[in-house]
Parts: sequence; C-alpha cells; structure tokens
Amino acid sequence: MKKNIIVGQSGGPTAAINASLAGVYRTAKDRGAKTVYGMLHGIQGLLNERYIDLSDHIRTELDSELLKRTPASFLGSCRFKLPGIHEDIEIYKKIFALLDKMDVEAFIYIGGNDSMDTIKKLSDYAIITGHPCRFVGCPKTIDNDLALTDHTPGYGSAAKYIGTSMKEIIRDSYCLEYDKGLVTIVEVMGRDAGWLTGATALAEGEDCDGPDLIYLPEIPFDIINFRDRVEKLLSKKRSVVAAISEGIRDKNGVYICEQGNITNFVDAFGHKQLSGTAAFLANYIAGEIGCKTRAIELSTLQRSASHVTSRVDILEAQQVGGAAVKCADEGDSGKMVVLQRISDDPYQCGTEVKDVHKIANEEKLVPREWVNKEGTYVTEEFVDYVQPLIQGDMAPIMVNGIPRHLISPKELSHYTVPERKKK
Amino acid sequence: MKKNIIVGQSGGPTAAINASLAGVYRTAKDRGAKTVYGMLHGIQGLLNERYIDLSDHIRTELDSELLKRTPASFLGSCRFKLPGIHEDIEIYKKIFALLDKMDVEAFIYIGGNDSMDTIKKLSDYAIITGHPCRFVGCPKTIDNDLALTDHTPGYGSAAKYIGTSMKEIIRDSYCLEYDKGLVTIVEVMGRDAGWLTGATALAEGEDCDGPDLIYLPEIPFDIINFRDRVEKLLSKKRSVVAAISEGIRDKNGVYICEQGNITNFVDAFGHKQLSGTAAFLANYIAGEIGCKTRAIELSTLQRSASHVTSRVDILEAQQVGGAAVKCADEGDSGKMVVLQRISDDPYQCGTEVKDVHKIANEEKLVPREWVNKEGTYVTEEFVDYVQPLIQGDMAPIMVNGIPRHLISPKELSHYTVPERKKK
Repeated sequence: MKKNIIVGQSGGPTAAINASLAGVYRTAKDRGAKTVYGMLHGIQGLLNERYIDLSDHIRTELDSELLKRTPASFLGSCRFKLPGIHEDIEIYKKIFALLDKMDVEAFIYIGGNDSMDTIKKLSDYAIITGHPCRFVGCPKTIDNDLALTDHTPGYGSAAKYIGTSMKEIIRDSYCLEYDKGLVTIVEVMGRDAGWLTGATALAEGEDCDGPDLIYLPEIPFDIINFRDRVEKLLSKKRSVVAAISEGIRDKNGVYICEQGNITNFVDAFGHKQLSGTAAFLANYIAGEIGCKTRAIELSTLQRSASHVTSRVDILEAQQVGGAAVKCADEGDSGKMVVLQRISDDPYQCGTEVKDVHKIANEEKLVPREWVNKEGTYVTEEFVDYVQPLIQGDMAPIMVNGIPRHLISPKELSHYTVPERKKK
Repeated sequence: MKKNIIVGQSGGPTAAINASLAGVYRTAKDRGAKTVYGMLHGIQGLLNERYIDLSDHIRTELDSELLKRTPASFLGSCRFKLPGIHEDIEIYKKIFALLDKMDVEAFIYIGGNDSMDTIKKLSDYAIITGHPCRFVGCPKTIDNDLALTDHTPGYGSAAKYIGTSMKEIIRDSYCLEYDKGLVTIVEVMGRDAGWLTGATALAEGEDCDGPDLIYLPEIPFDIINFRDRVEKLLSKKRSVVAAISEGIRDKNGVYICEQGNITNFVDAFGHKQLSGTAAFLANYIAGEIGCKTRAIELSTLQRSASHVTSRVDILEAQQVGGAAVKCADEGDSGKMVVLQRISDDPYQCGTEVKDVHKIANEEKLVPREWVNKEGTYVTEEFVDYVQPLIQGDMAPIMVNGIPRHLISPKELSHYTVPERKKK
C-alpha cells in the first residue's frame, strides 16, 4: 500500500469485532499503509467527518492485545443503510470527496448484511465513476446469518458464552426444590436465525443434561404443545430448562412476545409496558401449571462478554481482518472475505474472497434437518458444526481483578465540540 | 475425628459455596473422619433421609478441583426454617435420632442467616439434652449481609462477575448512537443490602467511566429525582448507565417494582403479568424523556457464574470450610467461622470463630457513609473494601470449549424411587 486506508465497524457489536479491527490495522501497517483511519460510528460518522488515526490509540503491541479483548465496537457503530446510487447520488459524491481528501486507497467495513450492502454500493459507484479506491467487507455478526461463509466471526464467542452460561443456569435451577417443580425459560438473541439459541445445546455433556427444550425461530412455535411438553417433563424432573429464541413466532407468524401485549397495559405513570418472550412464557406456564417459573434474558452480555471468548473465533476474526486488507491491497474490490471450512476433524479453516453481490441481504438460517422432527432440539450435526468454533480461550488481561480494555476514543461516549449539545 | 461428619448447604447458591464443601471434605478426611455425609437439599433432605457419602463423588484430587469450580450447591439446597424447640420438639428428636444412627459427631452447615439460625437451634438442643454432637456454621451468601464477619464467601466472586459484566455492558451501550441518547438500567440482586449493587462501581477505571448512577436499597429511591438526573446526564453523554438494586423502595417503603403492577394487567391467556424493577424504570424513562432505553437483569448468573470467580474468594471459602471442621473437631459447638480482615494493604485475612447466637438473623447493611450524600454512588471506602476480595482468577477446567463441573448426584435433578413421582 502506498496511501491511506480507512476502516469502520457497523451493526450490533460482537466480542470478536475488535479482533478484526486489530487484524486490519496490523496487516495495513505491515503492507506499508501510511495512515489507518477509523470511522467513528461507521459510514454515518464518516459523513460527518468523524474519524480517528488508529495509531493514536494502538501504540504498542500490548494495545493490540487489549484491543482483541475489548468488547463492543471500539470505533462505535451505526445502523445506516446507504441509499441506492440512483436515489441519492449526492451522498456518494460526498463520501468519495472525503476519501480523496483523506487520500484513502482502501475502505474496509466490518459488519453484517447491511454493511455488505454498503460495500456493494460503494464499489459499484467506484466502478461506474472509475474511482481507484477499493472496497472490501469483513464479516461480523453473532447471529451467524451471513451467506456463503461457513460461519461468521463473533458467533463462536457468543456460542461459547451462551453454552457456558446455560450450563451454569441449569446447575442453579435444580439447587432448590419446589413443590410443583421449577421451569426456567432462557431467552437468547436471534430474531430470524436460531444459531445462537441452538448453541445452548453446548451445555450438554457428561456433567450436564443440557437444556430440556430448544426452540428456534425457524420453526413455528405452538404454545399448547410447549405447555404439554413442559408438564410431561415435570413428571420426571424437578427442574425443566427451556431455551427459546427471542424471535419465536406462532404458525401465523405473530411473535410470541407480542401476544403478551394484546391487552393494553398502562402503568401508574401512563407508560405502556412491554415484556420479553421469556417473561411472557414464564408467566403463561406459571398460570397454566401452577409451578414456579423463572425468566432469564441473556441480554446484551451474549454479544459483549469479552471475558469468555473463543480463541478460534478471536484469531479467525483477526485473520479475516488481515485478509480483507490483503484483498484490497492486491487490487480487489466489491468483495467480502469469507471463512471456508477445510476439515471438521481436525478442524481447519481458511479465508477466501467472494463477490459481495452474492452475499448482501441474504440470510442464512439453520437447516431444517439440523433440528429434530418435533422442532424441540438441535441435532448432533448442529453441535458438530458449532463445537470447533468455541475452542480455546483468550485469557483476559486483568487489572485490579477486572478485565482490562483498550481505552476508547473519548468522543464515542461524550459529546464534544462542535457536535450538537443537548441543553 | 473418630466418627462421621455431615455437611449441608442451604439458601441461595453462590459460585464459592462448593469450595467450602471441598474444604470441609478435605479437612474432615485429613483429621480422620470415617465418612463425610452430604445432606441432599440441606436439613429438609436430611429429614427425609436423603444424603450421600461424599467419597462416592469426590474420588480424586481432580474431582476436588472440579468441585471448587462447580456453580450452585453441589448438594442441593433448601429454604427451610427450623421451628423453635418449644414449637416442635419432635423434629429435633427425629434429627438427633438420625445423627445417632449415622454415628455423626459433627454437623457443618454452609449458609446464610437462616442456616445460622438452624445451627443455633440444633446446638441449643444438644446442650439442653447433653448430646455430644457439635454444630458449626460456615458463612455463605452473595449478599454479604451476615453480621460479625468482614465479608462472606461467595460475595467476592459475585462482585467480580458484576464488575466485569457491568464494564462490558457500559462499552456496549455507547456503540450505537440514538437521537435522544440511550439509558441502560441494570438490575442487581440484593433485596435489602446493597453490597452487590455497589460492586458495579468496580467497572470504573482508566478504561471505563463506570456506571453513572448507583442506587442501593438502603436509601429511599426518588423516581422524579432519578428522572431529572438521567436527563441532565443525557445532555453530556450519549449513553447513561444506571445500576439499581432489585430492592429499591420509595420513601414509603413500597418496592419500585411493585409500582409497575398498580394497574391490573392480564395477558391474552388470563395470567397476571409481572415485571422487574429495571424493566419498570426503563419504561418510565422512555415515556418521560423519549429516549431509547434498555433494561438488563444480571439474573441468576450473578450467583452461579463459576466461569468468573475470584481466587481470593474461592480460597477463603475453602479455608472457612476447613476451619469449621477444625472448630468442631476441637470440641466447639454453636459457632460460626468468620473472616477477619487483618490488613487492607497488603490484604490479609484470617478466620476466627464467633458465637452463632450473635449472628443469626442479623443483617449487615452498607454503612450510610459508604454512599455519597445524594445517594447516587458508592464512596472510595466502599471500593477499597471490595477490591481485595475480587483479586486473582480460578481458571475453569475446559472440556470441549466449555467449563467442566463435577457430576452432580443424579437424585438432585431427577425423581428417584422411593420418592414421590408426579403422574
């Protein structure tokens, strides 16, 4: 590389997204890039000329190690969908003028479906206008729903956290005895794809039965059937644990969590009350069966728990970041780096590049045959697929008993001049 | 020791309670105990003659190491309050007949306030009847609310998990930008004592601002004042994170979470819907300020996350278990082992024994002077107190990418003959 490079992060964060950033930075520097710019809050920040010079933040090798262990998007993120070229050409002119001004020869975007759409549009515009800048995407999402890649960096660490936490929840659930038993419902992220919910099966082993039921969003959820299964399980076990995706829907496609709000509920302050799927089902089961119930949302932590990550995942995320730079440096554009599984046992995986036009806006769901006939658990094939992705640890760097993260750019969390200041 | 010993676990589990069990087992064996019995589900299980021989489960040194890393109560737990001797003498006769039958010379109970009450009553009965069995308590609770002990095993690990998770949540919270900002409300366990909620301040460091607001249950919660503070913070920061105890109450002593249910809310299935304190406040703030809000409950994981524990805590828990056996072996009864802090810097801590009559049913709250004047954050003294307790790690023993636990007695999770089987 002879000029500068810019990198951005987009969409929901993962525990591995900063390892990709570390990979981009290192390979760009190794290949001679002068400045590695980081967009703050992705393309949306770039449009407001908000960016940093990454070498001001990654000063040492230790900083690089910290970055790989830092949760959430170090550069901040956005959920900005670039309009089509024919819809708003001005925005493209503005972006390319900025890239010229910053003397950028390669633009790397780390993200999911929407981000690949951004790469596609920007590279299309460059081709149309004959602009020499290259645009390459770097996959990231805990949801693991990107097409063409065997899996997505970030998924392995989320799966490891989910399997680990589920195992702990199961242990906890049979500590105390309740007259009519205890039903624990654990809500996992993933609106449309059940990759994360299926990962709760990783809790299963010689020392743990695993969850009793697993419901993915790919398969219509029948609440009466669920109730009957839970009741039957309670005749054998003191404690029943069900993992459900936040996105489970009934056969008419209505989200289960929405059924909780059919009645208008307004609290003492006049605000409408919303509740999650697990809370709704826990409440439903308590009412129907009369047993004790508990609702647990794994919440934000499943995507930001950098204290339990998979070494395989973090290293692959870093590798994918480096491969994206290499791809751009070798003159390619409009590509996304993908992970190609070469072998299952022993697990081996390499990177390739694919045309981003074949990826953007496609969603990879869990295959029907990786869920049992009844739709209540994942199969062995599912577990065989996930298990290699959660291997190995990245021990946090502890300071005062708490994992250390790389200090983030101040302007991410605080308003700074000349930005809008709320009164 | 010449005869047998029995040990039980009671109350809510912690990540360190099994380290105490490991300590009891090892010291009892070292001191010549023949059989170390474990009550299943505490005194309640013992009354139904449900117990195991621990040497069937802890066969090797590796098993001991696994036990120290196993979350929740390995023996199961109960919330059984023993009636007074004058109320039901038959139950005492039954327990002592069982102890005689099992040839038990020492009874160790690992638990919180209620468990110490059990120790007190059993040792009183032994004194009254001249029975030679000794009864010693071993403190345990994530709530850290036991009197006379500097702190309680289990608290340090919970505090470490809470500080670590809070730090990750804070990072995650300023990734994305929202027009009117984001307010994240994190609900922490502790109905009456704010030790756990205060531990969210451990997130603070060079690389993290820590939470913006911390509300303990010891101080009346003013919702209007909260709203105003959040609004003011939003003028400076894109993201505001507040930690609240599940037990916060208004000045009339009404739980904040109960205010969410003033209106009767019945879902489509006719069940009453309940919501947590964080969900209630998130909803309230969204309605009042119009910003994006998020409610996170740290849930069960804060007491069972054995994948992030404090080495100091685990080793102290083990030490306390051993000290309880030593105390009983030396002829003491009606005592609880306590932790005595000898020095802050360097941190040094030893064990002592105290009369259980002085401990049972007393609750240690966070001192008022360890909370700032406004009641919105803990002071430096609080952090100085907690910090030594979260130091050092106990790396999990990983198998297939997931932490390994000691295999639990089958009858804990499943019904077995001759127990009642539900139809």
